[in-house]
Amino acid sequence: MSATSPSERTRVRRHSERARYDEEIVHAILDEGFVGHLAFVDDGHPLCVPMLYARKGATLYLHGSPHSRVLGLAGEGARLCLTVTLIDGLVLARSAFHHSINYRSVVIVGAGRPVTDREEKLESMRILVDHIVPGRSADARGPSDGELKATEMVAMTIEEASAKIRTGPPMDSKGDLELPAWAGVLPVGLVAGQPIADEYNSQPLPDYISSVVGRDPRAALRSDPEPA
Amino acid sequence: MSATSPSERTRVRRHSERARYDEEIVHAILDEGFVGHLAFVDDGHPLCVPMLYARKGATLYLHGSPHSRVLGLAGEGARLCLTVTLIDGLVLARSAFHHSINYRSVVIVGAGRPVTDREEKLESMRILVDHIVPGRSADARGPSDGELKATEMVAMTIEEASAKIRTGPPMDSKGDLELPAWAGVLPVGLVAGQPIADEYNSQPLPDYISSVVGRDPRAALRSDPEPA
Repeated sequence: MSATSPSERTRVRRHSERARYDEEIVHAILDEGFVGHLAFVDDGHPLCVPMLYARKGATLYLHGSPHSRVLGLAGEGARLCLTVTLIDGLVLARSAFHHSINYRSVVIVGAGRPVTDREEKLESMRILVDHIVPGRSADARGPSDGELKATEMVAMTIEEASAKIRTGPPMDSKGDLELPAWAGVLPVGLVAGQPIADEYNSQPLPDYISSVVGRDPRAALRSDPEPA
Repeated sequence: MSATSPSERTRVRRHSERARYDEEIVHAILDEGFVGHLAFVDDGHPLCVPMLYARKGATLYLHGSPHSRVLGLAGEGARLCLTVTLIDGLVLARSAFHHSINYRSVVIVGAGRPVTDREEKLESMRILVDHIVPGRSADARGPSDGELKATEMVAMTIEEASAKIRTGPPMDSKGDLELPAWAGVLPVGLVAGQPIADEYNSQPLPDYISSVVGRDPRAALRSDPEPA
């Protein structure tokens, strides 16, 4: 099964016209996001926690579980589902019914394993830091042996993936077009504000931070997949 | 059990100093967000899909599943977990190890039920539209009988909830403070761009949209819980 073949489990059923299975689109969404929501089954119950992640090929590296159970479960090869959603706009139709949001999301299904190999762990940490702030790992001190040991990374192989994208204006019914309501899209997105140096800082602001102030810090990573 | 009493399932174990169980904080995070990630168990496998939601008291109304299975499961009273995460900043420490993000998240556990009562469904749709764009439901045409029938809403009672908040500067080790790396926080948040009227629009932009352009459209909803 290719990295992005949908099974019955991941095939998008509702609004299937919004579904995409292309690997390129799935990867583009994953690469623009940095916080995913990881679902797993804990003693028969569903749980969902936010995780930082970064991608290398068909492997996702996950970090920062607020819920260490997932690391234990991942070590046992538990089934995982990571979902990443980028919010692009609020869609204001003339009818309440046709209100929606523009978004790009991807659902990944796979199994987890703990990253135990020293080199893989070092690389996964570097990839993660550079994914969240491109260029940052060159400036940050790398992990000591103790820090490496204290860091828990989970590798998740992308076994199945499906993306879903909504873009464009509201889709009002023809009979509603004359209604006296403003209709259109309010774009929304993540934007970086003014950096706040900590109280010990004596260093100038690096370009990779100053260059994204007032902008979407992920914009440079965006590949703009064709709208559905 | 009160609305926000943690069980062993929802009690935050990792970085427990960041955990909050106060109902007020949980509600504030829920009310500022509008896209949640809903996890459920599908034939033993975890799945996670993004959902629009709004809160009324201890009930969450969910809409817009890209995955209609969840509606069937909810109808059977399946266990659900809805997680909402607000991203507030990128935390750049001097060491890779201490990199983090500032965020506010909440994990809600409960059971779902389909909303079948006509009045409850009408109200839940109105609440949802007004949650995503406050003030909007007064301008949008309400649902027809056919639209009401075609809309599937799920009500989820908040049985357990826990919030987790990270805020403030990086927490570098003392021995790292002299390292030549800029350290601090790059605030990030959702910001609304310029509204794009659709091609049929002949109406002026309402205040509830123009007033949030260039700002966080949710800022007015923010109650700024005390940092941990």
